[in-house]
Amino acid sequence: MSRDPLAAYEKLRQTFSQDVKSDANQILLGEIYEASCRFLSKAKERALKSLVAGKEYFAFAAGKKLSRAVNKQLFISNPSEWEAFRKAIALKPSPETDAERITRIIYSVAVSFFCYVDLTKEGDQKTPGTFFEYLIGHLFAWRLNMNPKTRLPVLNLDMEASLPTDFVFDLGPNRAKFHLPIKVSTRERVIQVWAHQRVLDGVYGTGRFLGTPVILTETKTDKKKLEVVEICLPDQWRIYQMHIAQLKRIYYLDMPASYAKLNEVFPPLSVKAFGHFFGEADTLPI
Amino acid sequence: MSRDPLAAYEKLRQTFSQDVKSDANQILLGEIYEASCRFLSKAKERALKSLVAGKEYFAFAAGKKLSRAVNKQLFISNPSEWEAFRKAIALKPSPETDAERITRIIYSVAVSFFCYVDLTKEGDQKTPGTFFEYLIGHLFAWRLNMNPKTRLPVLNLDMEASLPTDFVFDLGPNRAKFHLPIKVSTRERVIQVWAHQRVLDGVYGTGRFLGTPVILTETKTDKKKLEVVEICLPDQWRIYQMHIAQLKRIYYLDMPASYAKLNEVFPPLSVKAFGHFFGEADTLPI
Repeated sequence: MSRDPLAAYEKLRQTFSQDVKSDANQILLGEIYEASCRFLSKAKERALKSLVAGKEYFAFAAGKKLSRAVNKQLFISNPSEWEAFRKAIALKPSPETDAERITRIIYSVAVSFFCYVDLTKEGDQKTPGTFFEYLIGHLFAWRLNMNPKTRLPVLNLDMEASLPTDFVFDLGPNRAKFHLPIKVSTRERVIQVWAHQRVLDGVYGTGRFLGTPVILTETKTDKKKLEVVEICLPDQWRIYQMHIAQLKRIYYLDMPASYAKLNEVFPPLSVKAFGHFFGEADTLPI
Repeated sequence: MSRDPLAAYEKLRQTFSQDVKSDANQILLGEIYEASCRFLSKAKERALKSLVAGKEYFAFAAGKKLSRAVNKQLFISNPSEWEAFRKAIALKPSPETDAERITRIIYSVAVSFFCYVDLTKEGDQKTPGTFFEYLIGHLFAWRLNMNPKTRLPVLNLDMEASLPTDFVFDLGPNRAKFHLPIKVSTRERVIQVWAHQRVLDGVYGTGRFLGTPVILTETKTDKKKLEVVEICLPDQWRIYQMHIAQLKRIYYLDMPASYAKLNEVFPPLSVKAFGHFFGEADTLPI
């Protein structure tokens, strides 16, 4: 077992796509979490001023470096929690009572490694982004017991091409297919998620793919002022959902309050903590 | 008149949006071009290996720094050419015979300033991107004799919001409206252009806005191998045009050959050198 988060990540990177849903990947994710927690236990914590109502944030600090913002209510630095999580999701569907706990541990696995990278590397956004794809891609595949694809064939009269996609999961003939974009945060780039869903609807038929993006957070940190804000565009999301395509769920680890409110308007946009996926995956197509 | 390209750019930045189509902006663009040419006349030119059939590229070099790739057939370092250009576009519509010459000078204005930034600043992508928006935004506004907006009101039963957009030009009741996304290059982010067009079609009605994105180039330079490639996704463009929305034109300054071929398939996607806009602007709505 590796004591270096990056060495464990490198192992995951090399083997991940051989069998995305594998136990081996799940164990490696736990190792990365454990090694990241060990590293962060020696770092300092620095309070941030949260401008987000009801949420507290802090950052890890080492030397002159400051990590991204960490949600205090969600973050757990406790490797044994990963084992509890594995037991919880071993039940399919997992009990709805565990949803918030599941969200917290997945958030913590992602953010602990991100903070490790923030404190040890310079301007590396690619490693966190790829790691988050591995983490969520694996958990989705594990829950559906199905490995994803990232290309789909297009056969349209005289056109023969293949369409590169985010992770897609095809449960087989006459069953649901999932379209899983994975983003650390979205900002104005979120329109891509709806546009890709529109292409899938157009090429394969509306309703064939359930669009279920998973996003970590929408926080932005001002490192000079040590302030945290959330950048949200709920009115634009409603316009995209009405005019581009229909997403089935939008899952968050650190859910922004202004997006949670989209569940309460009509037509609703269903935004949920990602932990709920493990309970509701089987009933999403209904 | 400023001898420093960045000082002239700063002047433009401060006054640009007061009157986008103004002669004052056009004169400042010429000053930036002249100052950039003066700077580059003292830089070295370094040949690049072009892997793009039929195109030659070089880069400017100063000290350890290397600029982005410059298309040899398009680039002109001659400030008097800007005055010739102003005379050409003063005729509305400008003669079709001038289209290639117009494309070359606009390309040169953009790229000369970009190379100046590449050689004098560190990792600054924002200044070139904003400058390109100013350059194309001004020329579009000047040709249409109309200043752009970047927000549109949305009134949809119980919803009242405003939609942030790329530059849009509204010629008035019962006349065409233009949707002008401006990009230095697109890669996989290009789907945003179609998605924004889809939103405009959905909110205001299909066919109300003519989508006419303007893109500089799709080259990518490997600075170690000194090689230039073009990154193009023509099959995906066709799928977007069939399934997301219809763009009226896609204008390039340095047009990739594989996109030019999209004019020849059915249904065609009309990809042209930007110089043609000055001749065809009035007839685009027909």
